[in-house]
Amino acid sequence: MKHFDCIVIGTGPAGQKGAIQAAKLGKRVAIVEKAQVLGGTQINTGTIPSKALREAALHLTGAHHRGLFGSTLQVKRDITIADLTAVSQQVIRHEWEVIRRQFEKNRIELIWGRAEFEGPRQLRIHRPAGSEVVEADKFLIAVGTVPARPATTPFNDRTIFTSDEILSLEGLPKTMIVVGGGVVGVEYACIMATLGVRVTLVDGRTRLLGFLDREIVDAFQYFMRQKGITLRLGEKVSSIEEVETHHGKVQRLVQAKLESGKTLRAETLLYAVGRQGVCKSLGIDRIGLACDDRERLEVNEHYQTAVEHVYAAGDVIGFPALASTSMEQGRRAICHAFGQCEVGNYNTSLFPYGVYAVPEISMVGKTEEQLTAEGVPYESGVAHYREIARGKLLGDDLGMLKLLIHQETHRIVGVHAIGSGATELIHIGQAVMALDGTADYFINNVFNYPTLAECYKVAAYNGLNKLHHVR
Amino acid sequence: MKHFDCIVIGTGPAGQKGAIQAAKLGKRVAIVEKAQVLGGTQINTGTIPSKALREAALHLTGAHHRGLFGSTLQVKRDITIADLTAVSQQVIRHEWEVIRRQFEKNRIELIWGRAEFEGPRQLRIHRPAGSEVVEADKFLIAVGTVPARPATTPFNDRTIFTSDEILSLEGLPKTMIVVGGGVVGVEYACIMATLGVRVTLVDGRTRLLGFLDREIVDAFQYFMRQKGITLRLGEKVSSIEEVETHHGKVQRLVQAKLESGKTLRAETLLYAVGRQGVCKSLGIDRIGLACDDRERLEVNEHYQTAVEHVYAAGDVIGFPALASTSMEQGRRAICHAFGQCEVGNYNTSLFPYGVYAVPEISMVGKTEEQLTAEGVPYESGVAHYREIARGKLLGDDLGMLKLLIHQETHRIVGVHAIGSGATELIHIGQAVMALDGTADYFINNVFNYPTLAECYKVAAYNGLNKLHHVR
Repeated sequence: MKHFDCIVIGTGPAGQKGAIQAAKLGKRVAIVEKAQVLGGTQINTGTIPSKALREAALHLTGAHHRGLFGSTLQVKRDITIADLTAVSQQVIRHEWEVIRRQFEKNRIELIWGRAEFEGPRQLRIHRPAGSEVVEADKFLIAVGTVPARPATTPFNDRTIFTSDEILSLEGLPKTMIVVGGGVVGVEYACIMATLGVRVTLVDGRTRLLGFLDREIVDAFQYFMRQKGITLRLGEKVSSIEEVETHHGKVQRLVQAKLESGKTLRAETLLYAVGRQGVCKSLGIDRIGLACDDRERLEVNEHYQTAVEHVYAAGDVIGFPALASTSMEQGRRAICHAFGQCEVGNYNTSLFPYGVYAVPEISMVGKTEEQLTAEGVPYESGVAHYREIARGKLLGDDLGMLKLLIHQETHRIVGVHAIGSGATELIHIGQAVMALDGTADYFINNVFNYPTLAECYKVAAYNGLNKLHHVR
Repeated sequence: MKHFDCIVIGTGPAGQKGAIQAAKLGKRVAIVEKAQVLGGTQINTGTIPSKALREAALHLTGAHHRGLFGSTLQVKRDITIADLTAVSQQVIRHEWEVIRRQFEKNRIELIWGRAEFEGPRQLRIHRPAGSEVVEADKFLIAVGTVPARPATTPFNDRTIFTSDEILSLEGLPKTMIVVGGGVVGVEYACIMATLGVRVTLVDGRTRLLGFLDREIVDAFQYFMRQKGITLRLGEKVSSIEEVETHHGKVQRLVQAKLESGKTLRAETLLYAVGRQGVCKSLGIDRIGLACDDRERLEVNEHYQTAVEHVYAAGDVIGFPALASTSMEQGRRAICHAFGQCEVGNYNTSLFPYGVYAVPEISMVGKTEEQLTAEGVPYESGVAHYREIARGKLLGDDLGMLKLLIHQETHRIVGVHAIGSGATELIHIGQAVMALDGTADYFINNVFNYPTLAECYKVAAYNGLNKLHHVR
């Protein structure tokens, strides 16, 4: 029986970085993958494909520069699904290569097959042609999640589908109902609207993306409506079915009935409510582990499950379920497992959030609502892209950056951005927060001109001016 | 006679920010502008027009995304000068408004006319219809520079011109000689090459942009040649003239002879060697001030000239002559003049440099050459955009970010970037440098995925891995 210091289950971001970390610590590492391809949701069905689709949509429709050049300069009329997926296929193939090379370079043994615990340290690997058992001292479960597919919804992967199937559509539909206003639903709703699809988004909550700052969400909801997206917030879907309509010719449509009595019809429906773990098939009950009702695992602050030598990281442990954080979780878990690496100050409060909607949204630190609830005295400083030369050059009149500044210390307690490049821009503020800078850093700093980074200076002035009479 | 606390001469970035700072200190401020429009070179002939032209060129040719979509997706064939200048006109008009509003909001008196010192505290304002004298306690000279136009070059502003005239060309030429490999020459050479103009760039020095890190310049020169630009480095121009050629039909061409004996011919020639102050017309000799041979002023670390109550800032005081630094110089000068504001730690060594070539280049801190000369022990850590998912999504395979890491302290002593978004990206590293962070900050930080910001983590790993055996 092969013995390893560590076996990682799953080759998504948490698994990859965990395995590499273990290898860097000199451990003998194996990583198990049950799919036909490496990279998990990040590479194959989630992060990368949606971002590639987004880039393609923005570029091919000319939306990137619509503010300056108008819509007459559409790069390509009659955009096909093939146009849209070409980019993602290119990037995906490249990422497979990158992952494989990293495994080879770090001498990580890649085992294809489905893993199932047989004992506390034994893992059976199932393959079409049989199975084998491998053994390790430590385990990292990084099996990710799949889109939830409730039995009451008649999925057919053609007109009623989850985000996993959206890139295999045969053509662009004219209309789409998106059920679910979380990150996935919102990103695809925006991309589809950019491509000219008429989108209706339904969510039971009264606002989208509840973890974000309210002012940013308000702006975002406004922009979505400006793009022609219909938001049905505070509305629950009671049934989803395919129906035939007879207006001249027979057409099959998807019909969603809402609890409020409204009926929505569209050519397609994207179901994006929640994601679901896949832990049961791992046989974790045999090692005394249990998962929650969505098949996810609970871990402590070291990413350790209830079983000491078994760690879990990534989407399988729940929020925030972002590729960026999952990578770090995987690394941290392994560092703890082998008690060998000093991991620097680990401030989960400085994890950034990035939503690749149209426009991009990103944040780090606290929202205004959190600060108010916690009784932290703060002032906000805002810069609009339209005030900034770079914003004008990008034709982005909608973007904004908001700094939340502690009233007494002038330290930055939150940064919120919506607009072009928001996911990049946030990292300047994040560094200043992490390294204990204050709003004065931005006042005294020199920024390249013209850049969006200048927003920090404008926002700092705006915030400190408001505080002028407070101190 | 009107009396002010402070008169600022020139409405470019240094003048604007100086005047606003004085107003914020409660001073009575006037600002003098001799042109027909506000904003100086930054808005009207330099920074903004070249950046707008660059954006338009990148977008209209599809160059932004060529890596992914290929050149078949050119947004617009037959690009005209009107297409290219439309953006800059839009942005320029907007910036005029912004400046005017800021002057009004801060109650800065705007005086149109040409300023000339009559006495140490008296300024005569010349206008077509007469003149008036105004008085102030402090002065800030921020009159900028104009392109040098040596008498030996037969400028005709049509085929032989400086950057001031490039946006008034009647049509896009097929070929262009660019004389001068400084920031201006390099930026326009790249923009023109992007538009399909066959460019030859001549510079007497053996490499371009000598203030940048050599590895970055090497990469940049490689990219320029890949774009079809011919570099004639270490070559001096001995004569420039218009000639007639007779190949079937008569054609007028510009001919540049090089000292090495080569002859270059092209439809147009952009002369971009140096810029020239305009101080003599200010009558500074009457207040006991002298300028150098390029009509620029010398100042101390507080931007004070040899005459105590007269300050100077911006291009008129020489390197780096960037809008970004000029703004801060203007502000600092005024703060010192009125001894009233605590200006935070002012670290000119953390001024960023941004070159809006194709690709973008930016840096902060020291170059490898400087560190080597100073005997600072460092290691470099490099990330290539092609290793980063975001780089693949942008189709930018050429970009790179280089961190220079102090071998002992692991502090960051330089950041150098070339590629999409380099001018924005540099500010993350700048913040970490300013706030005494080390390379470990990047290792432990979580970056949004996919972003170019992740380059910092990859580069930090690369650098620290190399240092693994040193510590």
